[in-house]
Parts: sequence; structure tokens; C-alpha cells
Amino acid sequence: MEIHLFDKDQNPEVFAAGALVFNEGDAGTEMFAVLEGAVDLTIRGRRVEVVTKGGVFGEMALVDNNPRAATATVTADARLVRIDRRRFQFLVQQNPFFALQLMTVMAERLRRAAQPA
Amino acid sequence: MEIHLFDKDQNPEVFAAGALVFNEGDAGTEMFAVLEGAVDLTIRGRRVEVVTKGGVFGEMALVDNNPRAATATVTADARLVRIDRRRFQFLVQQNPFFALQLMTVMAERLRRAAQPA
Repeated sequence: MEIHLFDKDQNPEVFAAGALVFNEGDAGTEMFAVLEGAVDLTIRGRRVEVVTKGGVFGEMALVDNNPRAATATVTADARLVRIDRRRFQFLVQQNPFFALQLMTVMAERLRRAAQPA
Repeated sequence: MEIHLFDKDQNPEVFAAGALVFNEGDAGTEMFAVLEGAVDLTIRGRRVEVVTKGGVFGEMALVDNNPRAATATVTADARLVRIDRRRFQFLVQQNPFFALQLMTVMAERLRRAAQPA
């Protein structure tokens, strides 16, 4: 599921390869949309996903207020849109399609997590 | 996360202990809300969750149209509300709180799936 709602965002942030976006266990109140580049998601050192253009990550901490479930590390120079709680809640309220897209991303992750390692 | 949006539904269906609600790999276009009883979710024979009052299951196939990721078996006589695609889409569009609750349930499942077995 690619989400292209943020493609024209005016304030993407630039992250160089190697940058840490957040660490497993951190408090977090923002999600990120990837406009360009690549971000590895790792749990206890194991890579669970590579997020690229059109992908999002960090939505779980936003949804349930728990610490970050994974570490996010930029692996190819990236432009990311940072989406805080206020914008997230606005989007969910104003744009049901966004909520459905996000649920689709989460369903994909759940299916992947259920695969034998 | 308990979802109580369906507590007053007029048409819950009764399932006896032992009933199979759906099988891993089935096509599926409905989710279920549990008003009473208990439903085991198993993946390749391993129990991943027990869903009880206030819980929902089956939302993944609704969201992404893929086959059922788990088998759902009633383990204690249950009353379930069956939510088809039409009602689901109506709810997501009309009630952002429902979408947020569902995302919270999915985030809980993702966190659980990420735990060491």
C-alpha cells in the first residue's frame, strides 16, 4: 500500500543515510511518510521492513501512545514528512481514505509478522 | 482496546462453543465484534489471541481483501455481530473514532506479534 497524500507536502525534512529517526522503546508522538530514500525498521536488531517512497512508519506509537515498537534508521538519503498527533487526528477525521490506507499498511505488517521467520 | 460501538446491535448471531467462524486462507469480507463469549485466533495451529467481549476480529481481510490470516474458533458460547464491507466503510466514513479504535487494535496485535515467541 503506497500512500501519496503527502507527496506535495511543503516541509519535508532531509535525513542523510545513517541517520536514526527513532529508537525502539522511545516515546513517540509522530509518524513519518517517506517521499524519497529508504528507512530500515528493525526490532531487536532484526530488520522487519524497508520503507521506501509512498511508505509510512511510526504510526503505531501515534495510535496507541506506547513506546516505539521498532528502530527506524535511514539507509538511503531520505526526504520524510513528519506528521504530528494533531495533523494525524485531523487527517483521520477529515479523510476516511487516509484511515483505510493506514489500516491497510498495518494489515500488511500483521500478515508479514505472522509469516514463519 | 475494547470497542463497544456494537453493544446494542439488534442482530447478534449466536455461536456455540466449538463453532468455526472462519478458516485461515478463506476469502473473507466481514469482520466480527464479540458481545459475549470467547473466540480463539490461531495461525498454523498456534493460538495468537483470545478475543472476548469488546474485541473484534476479521478486520484484516476486510481492509486489504486478502485471505484470512488466522482461523477463528469459538471457545465459549458467543454472541457476535457480523459487520460486512458496506457497514464497515460506512462506519469508517461516519465515525473517525471507530477507525482510530480499529487502528489501536491492530497496533496491539502488531506489538504482540513482535514479541519473542
